[in-house]
Amino acid sequence: MKKIKVGIIGGTGYTGVELLRLLVVHPHVELLLITSRSEAGRAVADLFPSLRGYTDLAFTAPEPESFKQCDLVFSATPNGIAMKHARGLVENGVKLIDLAADFRIKDVAVWEQWYGMQHACPELVAEAVYGLPEVNRASIKTAQIIANPGCYPTATTLGFLPLLQNELVEGDLIADTKSGVTGAGRGASVANLFSEVADSFKAYAVGGHRHHPEISQNLSEASASSIDLTFVPHLIPMLRGIHATLYADLKDPELALDEIYDVFARAYAQEPFVDLMPLGSHPDTRSVKTSNMCRIALHKAGGSGKLVILSVIDNLTKGAAGQAVQNMNIMFAFEESVGLRNPAVLP
Amino acid sequence: MKKIKVGIIGGTGYTGVELLRLLVVHPHVELLLITSRSEAGRAVADLFPSLRGYTDLAFTAPEPESFKQCDLVFSATPNGIAMKHARGLVENGVKLIDLAADFRIKDVAVWEQWYGMQHACPELVAEAVYGLPEVNRASIKTAQIIANPGCYPTATTLGFLPLLQNELVEGDLIADTKSGVTGAGRGASVANLFSEVADSFKAYAVGGHRHHPEISQNLSEASASSIDLTFVPHLIPMLRGIHATLYADLKDPELALDEIYDVFARAYAQEPFVDLMPLGSHPDTRSVKTSNMCRIALHKAGGSGKLVILSVIDNLTKGAAGQAVQNMNIMFAFEESVGLRNPAVLP
Amino acid sequence: MKKIKVGIIGGTGYTGVELLRLLVVHPHVELLLITSRSEAGRAVADLFPSLRGYTDLAFTAPEPESFKQCDLVFSATPNGIAMKHARGLVENGVKLIDLAADFRIKDVAVWEQWYGMQHACPELVAEAVYGLPEVNRASIKTAQIIANPGCYPTATTLGFLPLLQNELVEGDLIADTKSGVTGAGRGASVANLFSEVADSFKAYAVGGHRHHPEISQNLSEASASSIDLTFVPHLIPMLRGIHATLYADLKDPELALDEIYDVFARAYAQEPFVDLMPLGSHPDTRSVKTSNMCRIALHKAGGSGKLVILSVIDNLTKGAAGQAVQNMNIMFAFEESVGLRNPAVLP
Amino acid sequence: MKKIKVGIIGGTGYTGVELLRLLVVHPHVELLLITSRSEAGRAVADLFPSLRGYTDLAFTAPEPESFKQCDLVFSATPNGIAMKHARGLVENGVKLIDLAADFRIKDVAVWEQWYGMQHACPELVAEAVYGLPEVNRASIKTAQIIANPGCYPTATTLGFLPLLQNELVEGDLIADTKSGVTGAGRGASVANLFSEVADSFKAYAVGGHRHHPEISQNLSEASASSIDLTFVPHLIPMLRGIHATLYADLKDPELALDEIYDVFARAYAQEPFVDLMPLGSHPDTRSVKTSNMCRIALHKAGGSGKLVILSVIDNLTKGAAGQAVQNMNIMFAFEESVGLRNPAVLP
Repeated sequence: MKKIKVGIIGGTGYTGVELLRLLVVHPHVELLLITSRSEAGRAVADLFPSLRGYTDLAFTAPEPESFKQCDLVFSATPNGIAMKHARGLVENGVKLIDLAADFRIKDVAVWEQWYGMQHACPELVAEAVYGLPEVNRASIKTAQIIANPGCYPTATTLGFLPLLQNELVEGDLIADTKSGVTGAGRGASVANLFSEVADSFKAYAVGGHRHHPEISQNLSEASASSIDLTFVPHLIPMLRGIHATLYADLKDPELALDEIYDVFARAYAQEPFVDLMPLGSHPDTRSVKTSNMCRIALHKAGGSGKLVILSVIDNLTKGAAGQAVQNMNIMFAFEESVGLRNPAVLP
Repeated sequence: MKKIKVGIIGGTGYTGVELLRLLVVHPHVELLLITSRSEAGRAVADLFPSLRGYTDLAFTAPEPESFKQCDLVFSATPNGIAMKHARGLVENGVKLIDLAADFRIKDVAVWEQWYGMQHACPELVAEAVYGLPEVNRASIKTAQIIANPGCYPTATTLGFLPLLQNELVEGDLIADTKSGVTGAGRGASVANLFSEVADSFKAYAVGGHRHHPEISQNLSEASASSIDLTFVPHLIPMLRGIHATLYADLKDPELALDEIYDVFARAYAQEPFVDLMPLGSHPDTRSVKTSNMCRIALHKAGGSGKLVILSVIDNLTKGAAGQAVQNMNIMFAFEESVGLRNPAVLP
Repeated sequence: MKKIKVGIIGGTGYTGVELLRLLVVHPHVELLLITSRSEAGRAVADLFPSLRGYTDLAFTAPEPESFKQCDLVFSATPNGIAMKHARGLVENGVKLIDLAADFRIKDVAVWEQWYGMQHACPELVAEAVYGLPEVNRASIKTAQIIANPGCYPTATTLGFLPLLQNELVEGDLIADTKSGVTGAGRGASVANLFSEVADSFKAYAVGGHRHHPEISQNLSEASASSIDLTFVPHLIPMLRGIHATLYADLKDPELALDEIYDVFARAYAQEPFVDLMPLGSHPDTRSVKTSNMCRIALHKAGGSGKLVILSVIDNLTKGAAGQAVQNMNIMFAFEESVGLRNPAVLP
Repeated sequence: MKKIKVGIIGGTGYTGVELLRLLVVHPHVELLLITSRSEAGRAVADLFPSLRGYTDLAFTAPEPESFKQCDLVFSATPNGIAMKHARGLVENGVKLIDLAADFRIKDVAVWEQWYGMQHACPELVAEAVYGLPEVNRASIKTAQIIANPGCYPTATTLGFLPLLQNELVEGDLIADTKSGVTGAGRGASVANLFSEVADSFKAYAVGGHRHHPEISQNLSEASASSIDLTFVPHLIPMLRGIHATLYADLKDPELALDEIYDVFARAYAQEPFVDLMPLGSHPDTRSVKTSNMCRIALHKAGGSGKLVILSVIDNLTKGAAGQAVQNMNIMFAFEESVGLRNPAVLP
């Protein structure tokens, strides 16, 4: 069976361990190396005992030379690292999937404003492909650099997409989104202690969040009209999962829900990882836990008749590592769902 | 110290035990009796060991006669029970605070449609006072029957109220609300098992929820214009707390946030249980856990500039039993916050 | 690829959905039917949306005839059901794996006392094989009926086993065990509501638990001496996982921990699903979440020097459905870990 | 009403905010100052919004001079801080209650070994009173320095105490203890992130834990014989609560459980904060959540007949701040339960 040589930059965080969970049993992957400055020398399975028996790799210090032997490198680091490696990888014919945000925003000035640093390779941003297969599958096949989408952007974009592509809505859009705590990463911080977030719920970054420009870019590209988006994220006291509750006004308020359903059904008919639920459904996040699926349900709200779309994903899988593997499968012409066909874990 | 004689109808659910938690240490309350058909004969402290040492009462079967000796009866039963007791209580000069929904909706036909039963005493509905002190304090003082507000309606109404009273917003309103699981009650059901709701999140009743007409009634009474409300509730994997994320469009988009802040500040300046947070705040539900406080924060959303109001309460306290005690204090001319002045438990 | 025809009796509970999660992607399994009296006619994927796209089966009413076409039937019902099907299955050459307790206790009188019913086929109890592969692999290969072990018994037995087989300990044994809430099943009950067990912890059944005779039977069979076991279970506010903290006194208090480690290492050297952790480890239950692994760590307690063994499993996987699949693999001469080689989900 | 002047050293952690929750509504307390090096200048209610409306204090940098005006100072800092302040406070006639461990271990050499630092005032250790009112009430009344007990030691000692005082048990004792995550403090650390501990359970420090010598000291003082204790702590994915499962062998195995019950009942008959549960009870930790109560239940284990004692407290209340307030009440001759008579919050 064909195998590609894969490296991982970073990988001590939650997207890293999720990526490892998927890659160590992927039939087409030979994991060559994984780097971490802070954990260099430590066995991966010592940091993450869940991987005992699945890999003998140890973290190594990041050395640009060592990636040359790879066919593909995933970067699962904080923002601002992948862009420093990108030029060297591309020049050596190594493909790159960045799970952080370095290549997501086409307007480099906007990116620099939100991420608070100067971009190291603006010219590669133009060339990179935004790795949402439901939108860019064709370009992903031949891409050198994939900007793997953010978790909120994935859930929100997939929920709004058919409406915009078919010009069914008008006015402003609202995305009231909620995320499990793994979305906040594995850095030591008081704010994300168990004792700070358990048995509690809050909104955050109402005044502005980095995923706002990313979502706006996605929605604008899908729509002939300009988009006015209100985006409010919240923190749920649970591990994994994103729930996006999306609000939109129909151009034609008389348009029936089953007609809208048909539009979504057509849009996602061939998609292996988008599941349009029957009308009346309320997908819970656990229905996608650990899986690469996005489940979507459509409603008209009681009273107002406003269109409400519910979209759920696992932030670490379809919202990060799973989508990255899906992109890898597309890039290397593997069957798109190989390594990703496992039902969600419930309960 | 003046004491009133108090009875409780029901009281084996979560609003019941919360009411007991507050009443057993209330300086003006002598708890006379508590009824339960299913638990008759059982000591209250046997069902709820948290109350060991605080009450020697046992549940008794509900006997209309036995309530006559009370000054006040709380009904903490499912919907449809309090209305059967109301006439008898009122005729005997016993005041009634109903923590369920029997007296909340002034339009009896609407009530009967949503609650799926015939109302037992429509004539008393007109007379009953909706027990939201921030709106109806004067009427509460002299009321015979208090319709204690629902949890979602309390959080949502307090969040929108100053905007409507001051005619600052136009167009439709959205209430994206989230509740802890105690809001679903203590009945045996698969849907509310730990193993069904833990580590997961979902919307429910998007097509229509009983709190929608209650909230709409509140908002309409506060506003000169008619109100178009979209209301979407969600279930949070936590015990207590409601977080309402409220969206509205300003009539004057240029109106600055600190001017809106001033409107809210004036509206709630004298309120002991509404806390307007500093601009930029994101109140978490734990900041009100076990307390009778409603905390509110105001934002303009990044990008769109839409007005976003965050309103949090403890669904069992300000959203149920605490507000009922607040109403009792007002009805009997006790200091309004007596028995309710304890800080939230954090963490 | 060789496939066997598989049926499931029951399957609406948590062991059922876990079994389905594993079987729908098992390369050697063709799932023929799944029965449920209460859910007959309902699509499996409607009850468990996590399985949408993985099975088109609907629940059917249990008809003895329909199982004849199966090579193997799993019974994932409450206690007392499998024993009624067993005779018919065996007579038709259909193998049976019972995930409940009907065939676990060899002493039928003891079984009847603990399970409060008369056994329907005592003669088959003798014939049934207790499906703990680490003990009975050879017999499992040829068994007609497998008594799939309980969750506490699996974790506890594997933790004590090498000590008993090698006669290293004396005196009484203590198993202080803790389980996630899925172990309590999916029946509607107040006791297992989210609002009853979240953010709390308790012991239960200290005076006697059904798993006590099962564990005692296992330990006695492994030991030349009689065993005196104290067994105390507790409920953890989490979904999956069992943590057994086991206490024993060494016959030779001078025996060093690394010598004991070597005994365990030899005992489990060939076991695909027992992982002896390095000395000093404290395995958390999440390190086995959703996996079929049992992780064990050895300690001498500070101060007393008493031997302490920590043993963790996922109660639904190695403690139920995963072990059942492991048994199936052995019975049908598949590679023992096929369908079970996925790392634990972390976090 | 008599008020004393109180200061707090530290107070930015969980014992700090719990102490503040109790003190801001304590009728005999005037809170003068609270210090924190890191948060100096910040309003207490800004760090802990639960306290908005209850205190206007801001943290100040710790200045020895400023404590002189206090009658009592609580130290709610990490270990090793209170001992530096003790001499100065005592010389100025200011009483000190240390919620950390500086004065708990009478054998200073042992303390220095476990806490890894040199003690700043060994001579005051001898003079300090271990603040477990159930043992040392008389000495507490006149103490200058109180060593407020640890959380595990409180639950474990109260569970074993009557057995040892009455010489009912022999052989070694086992304390299998479990704690909520707030016990780990509010410091930024990966190990205590929500995403590390939620939905998981583990033992820790099996080889040795600082509370072991403290518990051993308590047990030895209560017993005529020497005590051999095995102590194993575990981490529960919940906020508050300690559950100690205690194992002991009766000298007289025939001694009936109700006789042992009577011994406990006599021992704790006058104790306001020890609740002996009826035989057969399994107290859950939520039955004491936010309260100062310790609930104890007695069992003989099924099969072995070993004595099993279940003891639960809230680690932040009876296990820390609540017990500190109880000690304050005793020291200043207030009614012992003033400020502490609130039922546990359930659920």
